Amino acid sequence: MDSAPPIADWQELAKSKRESAFARIPTDWILPTTLTSQYTETTGLNVLDVPRTCGLLTEQELAITEDHDATALVELMSTGKLKSVDVVTAFCKRAAIAQQCVNCLTEIMFDQALARARECDNYLEKEGKPLGPLHGLPISLKDSFNVKGTQATIGYVSFIARPPAATNSTVVDILANAGAVFHVKTNLPQTMMTADSHNNIFGRTLNPHNLSLTSGGSTGGEGALIAMRGSVLGVATDIAGSNRIPALCCGISSIKPTASRIPFSGGVPPGRIGSPSPILPVIGPCGRSIRDFELFMRTVISADPSNLDENVLPVPWRSINPSTKPLRFGLLRACSQRPLHPPIARALHTTATLLKTAGHHMTLLDNVLPSLYTSAILAYKFFLLDSSHTPASYMRASGEPPIPSLAGASFPELDGWEPNLQELWDLNVQRAGVLKKWHHVVVKGGLDAVIMPGYQATAPRHDTYGVPIYTVIGNLLNWPAGIISVGHAEEEKDREFWNKGEDYEPACKFCVLCMLSFSQRVKI
Amino acid sequence: MDSAPPIADWQELAKSKRESAFARIPTDWILPTTLTSQYTETTGLNVLDVPRTCGLLTEQELAITEDHDATALVELMSTGKLKSVDVVTAFCKRAAIAQQCVNCLTEIMFDQALARARECDNYLEKEGKPLGPLHGLPISLKDSFNVKGTQATIGYVSFIARPPAATNSTVVDILANAGAVFHVKTNLPQTMMTADSHNNIFGRTLNPHNLSLTSGGSTGGEGALIAMRGSVLGVATDIAGSNRIPALCCGISSIKPTASRIPFSGGVPPGRIGSPSPILPVIGPCGRSIRDFELFMRTVISADPSNLDENVLPVPWRSINPSTKPLRFGLLRACSQRPLHPPIARALHTTATLLKTAGHHMTLLDNVLPSLYTSAILAYKFFLLDSSHTPASYMRASGEPPIPSLAGASFPELDGWEPNLQELWDLNVQRAGVLKKWHHVVVKGGLDAVIMPGYQATAPRHDTYGVPIYTVIGNLLNWPAGIISVGHAEEEKDREFWNKGEDYEPACKFCVLCMLSFSQRVKI
Repeated sequence: MDSAPPIADWQELAKSKRESAFARIPTDWILPTTLTSQYTETTGLNVLDVPRTCGLLTEQELAITEDHDATALVELMSTGKLKSVDVVTAFCKRAAIAQQCVNCLTEIMFDQALARARECDNYLEKEGKPLGPLHGLPISLKDSFNVKGTQATIGYVSFIARPPAATNSTVVDILANAGAVFHVKTNLPQTMMTADSHNNIFGRTLNPHNLSLTSGGSTGGEGALIAMRGSVLGVATDIAGSNRIPALCCGISSIKPTASRIPFSGGVPPGRIGSPSPILPVIGPCGRSIRDFELFMRTVISADPSNLDENVLPVPWRSINPSTKPLRFGLLRACSQRPLHPPIARALHTTATLLKTAGHHMTLLDNVLPSLYTSAILAYKFFLLDSSHTPASYMRASGEPPIPSLAGASFPELDGWEPNLQELWDLNVQRAGVLKKWHHVVVKGGLDAVIMPGYQATAPRHDTYGVPIYTVIGNLLNWPAGIISVGHAEEEKDREFWNKGEDYEPACKFCVLCMLSFSQRVKI
Repeated sequence: MDSAPPIADWQELAKSKRESAFARIPTDWILPTTLTSQYTETTGLNVLDVPRTCGLLTEQELAITEDHDATALVELMSTGKLKSVDVVTAFCKRAAIAQQCVNCLTEIMFDQALARARECDNYLEKEGKPLGPLHGLPISLKDSFNVKGTQATIGYVSFIARPPAATNSTVVDILANAGAVFHVKTNLPQTMMTADSHNNIFGRTLNPHNLSLTSGGSTGGEGALIAMRGSVLGVATDIAGSNRIPALCCGISSIKPTASRIPFSGGVPPGRIGSPSPILPVIGPCGRSIRDFELFMRTVISADPSNLDENVLPVPWRSINPSTKPLRFGLLRACSQRPLHPPIARALHTTATLLKTAGHHMTLLDNVLPSLYTSAILAYKFFLLDSSHTPASYMRASGEPPIPSLAGASFPELDGWEPNLQELWDLNVQRAGVLKKWHHVVVKGGLDAVIMPGYQATAPRHDTYGVPIYTVIGNLLNWPAGIISVGHAEEEKDREFWNKGEDYEPACKFCVLCMLSFSQRVKI
């Protein structure tokens, strides 16, 4: 990374920002240090039960945060069976507890959220109808979204000097108009281009299943927060897997839609704008319930976002009736450069077997598609087109050092690779070839979806995730892709999938969930 | 242009190709040389009446080619009131006559067309239903589309060595499956990046209204052919105005849809593929009837082209009910660097006045949008990203010289400009700014469409068109845009719109049609 004279007080600046952000947690919601002193990145503790055992949440608050998805909560609030102020209070409290366990937050907006929740309740009482399709629902936002009056430092110390946002991100405006309430913003990695949500302002987000493991990134704050049930629905971005990696690490679900459906404007970019890369960043929801993702997508797209953001496709939401015929799945197994760890191999095998047993078709796609590894290197060349290295300049501006995981977040094959315009033409031709081949196999082949791993392993130890070759293909193709939880690692059951000749990181045995990435051509 | 040792026989090669192509006109359809010897690019003759006066067409053939649009012809053929073989014969004969007047064709496919027409007739007779929504309809294609078994030299002498196409362009396949019959391919400029449809194989296409004027380009063969009624519906491409410039020069209509709706795959590109330019080439129809454009768009999009071409948006065709409320138009007048010639100024004024009288709203957009001239220079930078100058290498391969109009087809401001990757980021930021401003004024401003000139003048003399600043903005924005005929130049009436201080090319007084470019955000 670039060398530059450090600014003497960057640590002070970061500390001051961090402390003022977290000072917004009410003192009543602070856990005893006897507990929090245990929650370090080396302990291997599972903290998922802390919200239930710490005694801070009432039975009703536990029920609100554990028993419903977002769709159900909106229904309950819209019909007056629950008050938004109670729902928002419950999630604020639980988010505060999550923060003290796994360090998943950046900006805390509890006061504004509770005020807005009261507005929602008053509106319902006065008007006899809900504010909108997200009436009173607390939603968490990755730090890169702008909320008027709140900072979006996205983990760069030099951005602390920037004033609070003067306007909302477009999608934030749409969600707010639909009745959503924003209670927290969540942590992410410095540069947003690594899978460890760690930066020099807010520190590192830990995996609530095992604090020694990564929560994933770049939307790792959401992954950890939702796993702790401090939020029921989060808003993330994704350019290489940023909304899917935290989901597969933390055992939640997420979807990366095709680009230009959810308005991207109005947020804070981690690098230079104007990239000629054909890979566009995408906004999508994360949570626990697939119908919640439909609620999110339908709400945003029904707001006609192309009127608000000139880069959104003016294409309405369309409902699709579930197929009554058996589905046709492609099954894409391991990439030889990143062989599957036993729990993932078992998850893939079990899922395929269950689907076949249920009458669905399963077509093996091994060796008929372009190499995932080569495709990922191609994608990363598109990510390296900025010769001015803007993220590094943002770091140099404060003197802060790069976070450790950045060292392993790129391909050794690309060390020293410098982009140039003429090669960019060739890269586009290569990408077109990859897309054409996938289209031939999947679309012309009549497949409804491809089932594949989201990663070769369950959540790895901090700073060891490496390059996301299983997720970035969805971005290179610009096809929708999602993560669905299908089970837990179990050493006994996984053993038969252990190819002894292969490397198997022991940390994985602590890991809890195996995930599959799900790709389908968009019909929405 | 690059210098290279000429290949001794490029002229022979071109002549041989040209003669073999035109030898496919049946001898019965050849005009006497007493006529054709007059049809030169310097005579100023109007040849629109030649098909009617030359005696080659029967009364029925004149009626078929003059009295109906494509929608009506399909209806008549689908119900057995006309035979496809008669319709196709009429258009083949008329296209042959047009060729001899204005040199608008490249590949002649009369035999194949008549055979296919008989198949259509037989199908209808046997099955009692039409083959598809374009049953039996003759359609003309720009030379850059591939038709199996036919060459697509696109005016490069070096491409004569290429074998005939082994497959159809995707859109050609779709149209064929819908029942269309292809009778001719049409002329275009060497490189496809100038407004004079002129190349060293097939020569120059002339404007049938006045042979001394350009037919426009790059789809000028279509413009001239359709003006001569040698085709009722043509298929064109457009990246800077290529489907609109011939329409405004020849007095027909056309539409450039948004990109990635009509499948672009399977054709012959005039330059390097893999461009990182955000301006994508677009396919659209040209003809005389707006409902024919709907027929074309609906037919292609209803064939679910995203299954056939991986770059097509998977968005179905949607019908829109005509608005019952007054429409809100923006009126964009002259760009100071290219002031309007009197007939265009009058056409714009008259149209705006008529629309206002009819109760529609008209908002003047002068000085609220980014400069068209500056925007066009930006667009042309995107067209200059290929430092390897592929079109020049295609020319060098045969030793053919560049056509004269290429000298005036670029901006003097860009002489010596060399693209580089880092500037490309800045260009994208500039484009984003232009799009944002247009979106703000037009979309957020609640306008339904913008009315503006398609060019500062009526069709100019050969090789003088220059840069297409009024059309390329539609490509830079990726908004749909079209050309609608609203009247003729009339010296007497135009005089009051003549600002004496401005340059007014006298050739224009011979010109016949003033066109308006029509932009509307796509809702299809």
